[in-house]
Amino acid sequence: MEADERNNFVETITDKSVDFRRWYTDVIIAAQLADYSPIKGCMVIRPYGYALWENMKTLLDAKIKDTGHENAYFPLFVPESLLAKEAEHIEGFAPEVAWVTHAGKEKLEERLAIRPTSEAIIGSMYAKWIDSWRDLPVLINQWANVVRWEKVTRPFLRTTEFLWQEGHTVHRTEEDAEEETLKMLHVYKDFIEKDLAIPVYIGRKTEREKFAGALKTYSLEALMSDGKALQAGTSHNLGQHFAKVFDITFQDMDGERKFAWQTSWGVSTRLIGALIMVHGDDSGLILPPRIAPIQTVVVPILGKKESEEAVEEKVREIEKMLTGVCRLKVDRRREHRVGWKFSEWELRGVPLRIEIGPKDVQKNQVVLVRRDTHAKEFIPIDKLKNKIIEVLDDIQKSLFEKAKSFRNENTRETSSFEELTSLIENKQGFVKAFWCGDQDCEVKIKEKTMATIRCIPFNEKKGRCILCGKTGSMVYFAKAY
Amino acid sequence: MEADERNNFVETITDKSVDFRRWYTDVIIAAQLADYSPIKGCMVIRPYGYALWENMKTLLDAKIKDTGHENAYFPLFVPESLLAKEAEHIEGFAPEVAWVTHAGKEKLEERLAIRPTSEAIIGSMYAKWIDSWRDLPVLINQWANVVRWEKVTRPFLRTTEFLWQEGHTVHRTEEDAEEETLKMLHVYKDFIEKDLAIPVYIGRKTEREKFAGALKTYSLEALMSDGKALQAGTSHNLGQHFAKVFDITFQDMDGERKFAWQTSWGVSTRLIGALIMVHGDDSGLILPPRIAPIQTVVVPILGKKESEEAVEEKVREIEKMLTGVCRLKVDRRREHRVGWKFSEWELRGVPLRIEIGPKDVQKNQVVLVRRDTHAKEFIPIDKLKNKIIEVLDDIQKSLFEKAKSFRNENTRETSSFEELTSLIENKQGFVKAFWCGDQDCEVKIKEKTMATIRCIPFNEKKGRCILCGKTGSMVYFAKAY
Repeated sequence: MEADERNNFVETITDKSVDFRRWYTDVIIAAQLADYSPIKGCMVIRPYGYALWENMKTLLDAKIKDTGHENAYFPLFVPESLLAKEAEHIEGFAPEVAWVTHAGKEKLEERLAIRPTSEAIIGSMYAKWIDSWRDLPVLINQWANVVRWEKVTRPFLRTTEFLWQEGHTVHRTEEDAEEETLKMLHVYKDFIEKDLAIPVYIGRKTEREKFAGALKTYSLEALMSDGKALQAGTSHNLGQHFAKVFDITFQDMDGERKFAWQTSWGVSTRLIGALIMVHGDDSGLILPPRIAPIQTVVVPILGKKESEEAVEEKVREIEKMLTGVCRLKVDRRREHRVGWKFSEWELRGVPLRIEIGPKDVQKNQVVLVRRDTHAKEFIPIDKLKNKIIEVLDDIQKSLFEKAKSFRNENTRETSSFEELTSLIENKQGFVKAFWCGDQDCEVKIKEKTMATIRCIPFNEKKGRCILCGKTGSMVYFAKAY
Repeated sequence: MEADERNNFVETITDKSVDFRRWYTDVIIAAQLADYSPIKGCMVIRPYGYALWENMKTLLDAKIKDTGHENAYFPLFVPESLLAKEAEHIEGFAPEVAWVTHAGKEKLEERLAIRPTSEAIIGSMYAKWIDSWRDLPVLINQWANVVRWEKVTRPFLRTTEFLWQEGHTVHRTEEDAEEETLKMLHVYKDFIEKDLAIPVYIGRKTEREKFAGALKTYSLEALMSDGKALQAGTSHNLGQHFAKVFDITFQDMDGERKFAWQTSWGVSTRLIGALIMVHGDDSGLILPPRIAPIQTVVVPILGKKESEEAVEEKVREIEKMLTGVCRLKVDRRREHRVGWKFSEWELRGVPLRIEIGPKDVQKNQVVLVRRDTHAKEFIPIDKLKNKIIEVLDDIQKSLFEKAKSFRNENTRETSSFEELTSLIENKQGFVKAFWCGDQDCEVKIKEKTMATIRCIPFNEKKGRCILCGKTGSMVYFAKAY
């Protein structure tokens, strides 16, 4: 496209209903959240996407600190011998590890893994730091990059390198570790539901789906608007698995030397993928106000030359009034027409738009447009500040309610295997059904339906396994990302 | 040591005057800023050290954003072919690069460097994003980990992996790039002097000392309390070096296609090393209040059983009064004696200590002790809040003034090469002298004195080179870390 032409059209994106997969990547590229890089499977998080991540980080970090955790930083490298100590752990991660073999011109004596996760390196330090029950609990979190070599990648959802936080804690008793595991699961639920406006089901993973090296894994499962589930975060009770191989012991109150109990838990930039797929529409992104880099955009409509100054004066007044009230951007660009700007800010998911032209100035009003409903309203300028606060709050709630209704409508229950197969194939979404707890049944169901057990929710009733008929628990099945 | 004994002594540290090098690492380990890891040359930044880094990051990040920059995130990996594009760049960094050669069991087609710095990977993206003068300037910063394989390492000062921020900007004209380079140099100066209380000389690096691939490098040079200089940060005008090899071009206002002008600039966790070495004393760390993780520690002196409750009640009152006023910690541990606690918080560099015992409660006062001067003062509790604000402010200023006096006293000027040699050998510190600008003289002076040219300050007078007698500029010589 020529430069002139480019200025007249916002980049077009594929319709969701036509090709959801393509819609997803179109939105990411056009909204400038991320871009492909010269390294296969690695993306660049562009300033707009990174500002979103920073807002998410700030909110979650505060919750992690409020629950008594401190941040620290551990090395990027894990010596092969350390990674290999826990048998299930190395088996699970070995196929995905990037190996450093040389430094400068020299070959290293031992290969170094780029951390796919940090249990091993952190465990080796905990063994050194912990000596007495008085040193417990250790409650540490790390914000870091990790690398897992993936065959098939997609921006945010599955990338070779990604950003995340990983909490690693050590406790005196099994009960303390379990309590911490569940506490962090609920911290995540609170964050994902309140700040990201994404409803989640929580529960325990099956043995087959748990983290490599964990005793138990709990997860949060969200429903994307194409009907597929996405694991939004995990919290692991590691038991004494790592403590035993890394020799993390402490002298207990009774004077005895004991192995410690551990947990680990993490969420990643994958959550940005969830945000896009839960809330977005054919016009692009829709960002929940609490984490939107820009909450309100002002687009002045200049009209004739003689009214320009009056409009600009009102814009400055609004700018001053809303500073500190919301994250505000005034779009004064001259090279784009007003309609183009409207489309661009819609594409980028800004929750609220203020339009103001010469006629509005005369009436001392603005037009306020919601991104989620496209509803337009005339607002007197002296009422604008309170109105903005109120509407941003309402958008946050509406997005959650809308996503929750969709999720609930797409959560079905059945006791017939034929119906399960048909629901997964034709309707997608979550299907609640009983499962005996046997891996054989789990694998067979997956092979026949493509659906996996997303999680086993808490306190659910018992019933007959949808495949074999033996007694078991209610679980959520879904096709997943 | 036995557990009981351990509780009676704070870990001892070597005296500064006995062995500065050992004092430095003793402080780091004992204050729990960092610890050695199982990977040679890599350290673990422990929660206390990381909280310090977070405070530094928050203050600097705000300054970077206030000057119009946005954060983003680029991949950890740089394909060998990209890194090799700029000849000087690869020559400078190749000996220090960690190479990823395998992923899982497969050998990669092309080796991937772990970024030692990100000019190459970012340049390749800028070539894609920049098309017109309207896209300029691009003002992006990244907070990231980088890896440089060092033969000799020391915590914070020189580690294989370190944390930093790297700004990478693109401009329309040479003047714009130079203005940005100097602007960021001054942003760093402001941050290092005001927030870290470390005075710095700023100036240009010689051709020999400049960044591999830059047109010009400017640096900030600080003086450690052992008399050695430390480069605290750098700002590079990259000219069109990277633009030409990565093809970063734009259509200018005149319709012509031109190569862009670039800058890059960075500071790292090395600054924590500077903080320790500039302000610390034989009792340990001394942290400037603006970045101290804990600004005031309250140590209750419980006395007899019957007065315990009265003390605790006052402590709660103080805690309430000072919340939001300063970063406060109340040390209620029972397993340590009061004297031990005093020593520990001194070791960890907490700027202010509040002591309160039964007699103080009766008098409605506390004892306030400054970490920097050890000065003790009785303060009535109703005056405590204002006093704390005032004293923290005073400590911040005093630390800077003290460091500045030391730096100034240890900045000497000479026109005799013999004196330069003797000053560097016997007094250390900075020595100002004229230098002709010739690399031969620069190398000879280094060989004979061990001192390097730290920087060429701005607007300095001209004079005769201390070695060859030809006319040149005033420069700062010093032995450096």
